[in-house]
Amino acid sequence: MLFHVMMNVHIPQGFDQEKLKQLQSEEHERARELQLQGKWLHLWRVAGKYANVSVFEVESPAEFHEVLSSLPLYPFMEVEVAALCRHPGALEPNK
Amino acid sequence: MLFHVMMNVHIPQGFDQEKLKQLQSEEHERARELQLQGKWLHLWRVAGKYANVSVFEVESPAEFHEVLSSLPLYPFMEVEVAALCRHPGALEPNK
Amino acid sequence: MLFHVMMNVHIPQGFDQEKLKQLQSEEHERARELQLQGKWLHLWRVAGKYANVSVFEVESPAEFHEVLSSLPLYPFMEVEVAALCRHPGALEPNK
Amino acid sequence: MLFHVMMNVHIPQGFDQEKLKQLQSEEHERARELQLQGKWLHLWRVAGKYANVSVFEVESPAEFHEVLSSLPLYPFMEVEVAALCRHPGALEPNK
Amino acid sequence: MLFHVMMNVHIPQGFDQEKLKQLQSEEHERARELQLQGKWLHLWRVAGKYANVSVFEVESPAEFHEVLSSLPLYPFMEVEVAALCRHPGALEPNK
Amino acid sequence: MLFHVMMNVHIPQGFDQEKLKQLQSEEHERARELQLQGKWLHLWRVAGKYANVSVFEVESPAEFHEVLSSLPLYPFMEVEVAALCRHPGALEPNK
Amino acid sequence: MLFHVMMNVHIPQGFDQEKLKQLQSEEHERARELQLQGKWLHLWRVAGKYANVSVFEVESPAEFHEVLSSLPLYPFMEVEVAALCRHPGALEPNK
Amino acid sequence: MLFHVMMNVHIPQGFDQEKLKQLQSEEHERARELQLQGKWLHLWRVAGKYANVSVFEVESPAEFHEVLSSLPLYPFMEVEVAALCRHPGALEPNK
Amino acid sequence: MLFHVMMNVHIPQGFDQEKLKQLQSEEHERARELQLQGKWLHLWRVAGKYANVSVFEVESPAEFHEVLSSLPLYPFMEVEVAALCRHPGALEPNK
Amino acid sequence: MLFHVMMNVHIPQGFDQEKLKQLQSEEHERARELQLQGKWLHLWRVAGKYANVSVFEVESPAEFHEVLSSLPLYPFMEVEVAALCRHPGALEPNK
Repeated sequence: MLFHVMMNVHIPQGFDQEKLKQLQSEEHERARELQLQGKWLHLWRVAGKYANVSVFEVESPAEFHEVLSSLPLYPFMEVEVAALCRHPGALEPNK
Repeated sequence: MLFHVMMNVHIPQGFDQEKLKQLQSEEHERARELQLQGKWLHLWRVAGKYANVSVFEVESPAEFHEVLSSLPLYPFMEVEVAALCRHPGALEPNK
Repeated sequence: MLFHVMMNVHIPQGFDQEKLKQLQSEEHERARELQLQGKWLHLWRVAGKYANVSVFEVESPAEFHEVLSSLPLYPFMEVEVAALCRHPGALEPNK
Repeated sequence: MLFHVMMNVHIPQGFDQEKLKQLQSEEHERARELQLQGKWLHLWRVAGKYANVSVFEVESPAEFHEVLSSLPLYPFMEVEVAALCRHPGALEPNK
Repeated sequence: MLFHVMMNVHIPQGFDQEKLKQLQSEEHERARELQLQGKWLHLWRVAGKYANVSVFEVESPAEFHEVLSSLPLYPFMEVEVAALCRHPGALEPNK
Repeated sequence: MLFHVMMNVHIPQGFDQEKLKQLQSEEHERARELQLQGKWLHLWRVAGKYANVSVFEVESPAEFHEVLSSLPLYPFMEVEVAALCRHPGALEPNK
Repeated sequence: MLFHVMMNVHIPQGFDQEKLKQLQSEEHERARELQLQGKWLHLWRVAGKYANVSVFEVESPAEFHEVLSSLPLYPFMEVEVAALCRHPGALEPNK
Repeated sequence: MLFHVMMNVHIPQGFDQEKLKQLQSEEHERARELQLQGKWLHLWRVAGKYANVSVFEVESPAEFHEVLSSLPLYPFMEVEVAALCRHPGALEPNK
Repeated sequence: MLFHVMMNVHIPQGFDQEKLKQLQSEEHERARELQLQGKWLHLWRVAGKYANVSVFEVESPAEFHEVLSSLPLYPFMEVEVAALCRHPGALEPNK
Repeated sequence: MLFHVMMNVHIPQGFDQEKLKQLQSEEHERARELQLQGKWLHLWRVAGKYANVSVFEVESPAEFHEVLSSLPLYPFMEVEVAALCRHPGALEPNK
């Protein structure tokens, strides 16, 4: 099943810059793993914002929760979540 | 360039059902054309809502406007638009 | 999988009262079927409002969409949807 | 009587991780007690969020307040509350 | 138990003035009954608005729903509802 | 004249617990005085929230401001204010 | 006592233009009376909007309600109301 | 030209009380100057809130910005701004 | 002086298409006049929406109101208005 | 292509004033560069607010993101972004 997520990242003023870089590096590593596993299907940056639009493909809502909350920057994110399904007007199956 | 659109469709109560079916059929035909032309890249239904999440690939904001406003159900839609760009953590180019 | 839905019903002023009663009766019949099939797990009225809180158990987001949009009053509803999963602090499995 | 609660938990950045784990452990212990007492009837996690949907069965609004505010994580929660009653379309009594 | 309600009344433009007067007269009659029965404890007008603040004393959320939805102007109202309980700083019991 | 106030109290995380208890005790003392003086007419807790609904009877908006801002917890409150007047459907005078 | 009101006027599409002109003319006449009586102290148009900012001086919230709801365009207005009092930094008394 | 401003003041918890008193005293001094210069035309307190409603008369938007941002408490304010003009129903010129 | 306006156009469902085309043609004619007079300085379409972003240069808030409300589609618009002034970081004067 | 941005700047209370001045000076320098390069087309201050309205001309959403996030005050900004295109009623091409 597919989940659509809009993630807005909020880093508090004065947050340690070294720690932030490390978190971002860990985030990219985790994102890489999840993409290679085929779980993080789409990942786009929203132009002009510290935000992304993503689509995940998972076995269950529980796996989706596990995957999303495993992101190193998750505690800094405000997320909007929507479950997706195939649109009757789409030519190809979900993806 | 890519545009992300969240479309919510609002059909007024009492709208002629025959006309609605015709509009929906025209909408699917137009969606089919735009998908075959490679302009409507992704089209998902939001589970439980008369709404979809879409990604368009166009040459310019003007072409995006032309494409979106050409949809037969466009006058019934409330849309949220965001320009996308490649995310530094994405393994593959935009798509 | 479980979906949580908050449904607010808005009947336009001047809507035909006979037709409304018929729709409500069809709605109750459909609700009865879905409860007997084990798909509409919980259904509570929100005190003071023309609204309910519901939990559905379905095979997929697509089935959830089909079930919810099959409700005779669906075109009059404003819905908020959330996918649920087991809470680590819950003593019993989802239900 | 039944109360429906949507709880969103917000842990401030930089909050002591040891203390948080202890609070979460106390929260689970308290949740266990209240479930065993039949007061916390339903507890689901909202997929993708640090949030839950719950239904409480209590004797009065005062007992509901006492129960909810006894949760160790209550000071970190933003809550939305609604009193529930039996829906005319529900096949079984409230639960 | 006590319920606090903020009621905002919205009469559609062009609504028949005779019918409105009749509804308002029925509303006052119903309000009179409910006050005499001790169920509609407080009723104040919000200065400058077609709105009131009310407190109801009822046996259960179900009775509250029945009472509120029995108001002739209920279909024209947007309501905000909150269950009340005794405040630890209040000198007298609820009322 | 009467003022209706919805007070939501927000205590910042990490606020000194001793100081908070003292403030709460001072708040109750002040509330007691204002109730005895007949200025704080009604005080109810909103079930499930750190919030109350209150009605004040004062000589003027200036006195209302003085009374409300004299509360020890006032700096921690988010308030919504509405002036009240007698409702044409109320059986008894304002109170 | 003084009340501050922000009035936004919404005329439904298709409203009879003759009737609108008559209502506006009656509104100006009523506004003239209330200004001459010293009750409508200030009346400014919000540049670019069908809206005004006003200050009323009245004996009580009840008189304020009576004055405001006597405006011929009142049924078309969305209003925001605030009671005012003298500011400690103001050089002159309220006005 | 006239500008209408709604100013809400937010003092962070734990802000130094001595410094706050000094800022408030400087604010009153600056307000006095601007009133004497005829630039701060009206200044009212919103009853029950740490907020005021003000009207400024200035030569240009630039002067308005300069005047408003010169207030010692400006960094603590959340402001809503509207340019005003003469209302066709007002008996006297702007003021 | 400069005013920034975000205009969102809402045409009611079922509005006469002939009349709409005439209004749009009159709107373009009026827009042409105002641009030639140097009063409508900038006019951009928001990609994907029936909306525009505009900047007007006028003598006063009153002239701005007159100009904006002279637009044939003005009764169908929801507008957000902000007065502009020169930014200290701008290399060239306002325009 | 053109992007319209509304930037609201929020400096946390207690932020080091020396560091702020330095950031503002760096911001002006960067703004100067981007204006000279023809990328920051318009820059206006919103009267009364620590905010500006800007229009950028860039090659792509990616360049827009790079430009905007290169601003020294970007981490303090809340931004609203809209892609623009030529309006059919505009006499001159985009600019």
